[in-house]
Amino acid sequence: MTNDLFFDEFIAKDFIRQASIQSHRIGFYNLPDQDTTRILDFAKSKDVELIAVIGIGGSSLGAEAIYNFLNSKNHYARKLIFFDSTDPISIQNKINLIKKDRTIFLIISKSGTTVESISILKYLDQLFNFNRENLIVITDKNSPLEKFGETRNLEIFHIPDNVGGRYSVLTAVGLLPLALVGVNINSLLQGAKNLKNSFFSGNYDQIIQKAIYYVKYYNIYSLNCLFSYSESLRGFNSWYVQLWGESLGKRQLSSALKIGFTPIGLIGPTDQHSFLQLIMEGRTDKTVTVIKIKDFENNLTVPENRFKNLESLDMLNNIKFADLINMQCDSTIKALESVNLPLDVIELESISEESIGGLIYYYELLTALVAMQLNINAYDQPGVELGKKILKNKMSKN
Amino acid sequence: MTNDLFFDEFIAKDFIRQASIQSHRIGFYNLPDQDTTRILDFAKSKDVELIAVIGIGGSSLGAEAIYNFLNSKNHYARKLIFFDSTDPISIQNKINLIKKDRTIFLIISKSGTTVESISILKYLDQLFNFNRENLIVITDKNSPLEKFGETRNLEIFHIPDNVGGRYSVLTAVGLLPLALVGVNINSLLQGAKNLKNSFFSGNYDQIIQKAIYYVKYYNIYSLNCLFSYSESLRGFNSWYVQLWGESLGKRQLSSALKIGFTPIGLIGPTDQHSFLQLIMEGRTDKTVTVIKIKDFENNLTVPENRFKNLESLDMLNNIKFADLINMQCDSTIKALESVNLPLDVIELESISEESIGGLIYYYELLTALVAMQLNINAYDQPGVELGKKILKNKMSKN
Repeated sequence: MTNDLFFDEFIAKDFIRQASIQSHRIGFYNLPDQDTTRILDFAKSKDVELIAVIGIGGSSLGAEAIYNFLNSKNHYARKLIFFDSTDPISIQNKINLIKKDRTIFLIISKSGTTVESISILKYLDQLFNFNRENLIVITDKNSPLEKFGETRNLEIFHIPDNVGGRYSVLTAVGLLPLALVGVNINSLLQGAKNLKNSFFSGNYDQIIQKAIYYVKYYNIYSLNCLFSYSESLRGFNSWYVQLWGESLGKRQLSSALKIGFTPIGLIGPTDQHSFLQLIMEGRTDKTVTVIKIKDFENNLTVPENRFKNLESLDMLNNIKFADLINMQCDSTIKALESVNLPLDVIELESISEESIGGLIYYYELLTALVAMQLNINAYDQPGVELGKKILKNKMSKN
Repeated sequence: MTNDLFFDEFIAKDFIRQASIQSHRIGFYNLPDQDTTRILDFAKSKDVELIAVIGIGGSSLGAEAIYNFLNSKNHYARKLIFFDSTDPISIQNKINLIKKDRTIFLIISKSGTTVESISILKYLDQLFNFNRENLIVITDKNSPLEKFGETRNLEIFHIPDNVGGRYSVLTAVGLLPLALVGVNINSLLQGAKNLKNSFFSGNYDQIIQKAIYYVKYYNIYSLNCLFSYSESLRGFNSWYVQLWGESLGKRQLSSALKIGFTPIGLIGPTDQHSFLQLIMEGRTDKTVTVIKIKDFENNLTVPENRFKNLESLDMLNNIKFADLINMQCDSTIKALESVNLPLDVIELESISEESIGGLIYYYELLTALVAMQLNINAYDQPGVELGKKILKNKMSKN
């Protein structure tokens, strides 16, 4: 994975030291080094066609991002779906995909009391009689959900205490459903580990440069667009939006000032025909990070097909679509350079476990570094509690 | 469709007069009044299983929004897919869905020279030997694509000159694929017409209040979040992002100043676990519009299912999911009210053609009114031309 920056900033070595100190307390840093034996053994023991995750937010977005990315190319025989909304029509449509004896369910909730997930669990329990064979629990140690799982004698996987939901994709939360599908989770972790090692050995200081730049120009550029040039990265964009928005949109610890960066997920070339106009000619309040895939490993090619009256587009003939999308990407980069927005490019080698593992770790690190400089807690989400409280009041009056 | 506003603004009747004057020049205003006979007759004459649109941006987002919304509930026998990217893997995956003799293709391009769409057309022509039976053209009068269509003796539908791509969903661009699927396009237009008539007769001045408010507080609230409480509105969010971002992100006609509002599409309850934290505790630079569906026409209910150790969530028992998602929506509204953000609620009656037709017209009107006050041209997109020019240079050197 390469990452070329088109803006200059000085580098501060002590960022690495700060991150290193924080890594003793914050769990995501060390997830690449975990032992995956239990997860792999468990996945091997299961013969299923469909893996259905009951989870929302941090309990679903990470696995969905990685699955969508890899499945676009690999077409796994086992499919992964997510019950991630209380929308009744969406629930019903997903139930229609389930073959009772060929499906394993994973209920994932860090707190163990997520309203959306438990309400769906209750409904599905009626249909599928959950038991040790078809339901797995992933939750915090000692959560009410764990205790419920114990009364049903279910297999339970824990989320480490010091790993927040939106940083949990490289725990059992993401690894177990992905391993069940057939994703090589050790390669995924290896990708993250490569990034981690590069960063901590001082060989990947682009992350630090970006973090410093974002914070320094916080008052000018408060929106951060991620322009991903592949449909396969749509899920990754959503994961990024949660990570960035929920971690950095927060009151400053010292001042209680409301601050935050706004994440925007875009897909090229589709959003060249949508959001790009706003970036080019709207307010200059946005940074742009372009993600491109170096090798799509795909030879689909525009044929030597001459269309009468469309000769002006004969220049498309014999171009591989993989080259065309990357030419479009490069053209967008050039156009963005011309309007002087802070711009950087991340290039992934290919659609592989290593690539996405590295990308995930890159963004977790970047988030952590920005939060440290802004003096905010990147690992809580106090702003969503009020809505939950209001809902519980409404329900108890029901 | 009701729309309750939680912020106050004065009302200016002459907005209606301005819009009325503009409607002689700008085509979208009068689309609800069109004659759909040719489209309906044509759709009736076709017996297919799959409708495949080759189109990007304004040529796909509108039909996709309406199809996703209605199909979530109606499960049409005929499916609609979109070739809307040059991503080779995405193209290949869509080709795998096609049954050769049961599919009709629509090539949609306003200019008739859209690189993405023509390159895909060339590729698919090799596989499916396009002819009058399996390919329809929708384009501007006298475009190169129309002339190509004539040489192949294809059926051609026109996009009115005075309707821009992102305002074209209620022309053949949206109506033809939707009619082929089985959507009642007259009801769709009726929904738009109801909104239009209410507005021009002075009975729907919330749109004016909102437009005035947005422009007045432009320097404070430059981001506009659309928080849609139904998975079925995901496509609508993308349509909104294009409409709002591409229409309003622009240089001011008088000053050449770069201005613009940033659209954000969110889905509840999923994004309560993601973006909501940023709205609640991040910068106060956002307005929020919540869309809720009054009647999901669905009785899925959390059963009387007591889970040991999860008794605290027994309050979920016997609640319909349709009520639960709307309680979550109302709780989010209450929480947002407490932080004093400009907030308004749009309530759709149900998942129906009338509802989505009205909603589309609502947003087109709102966009037009905001643009008039900002003194910008809502109907062009000059900012995307540079990237296109760079791409053509790259290709001709290839």
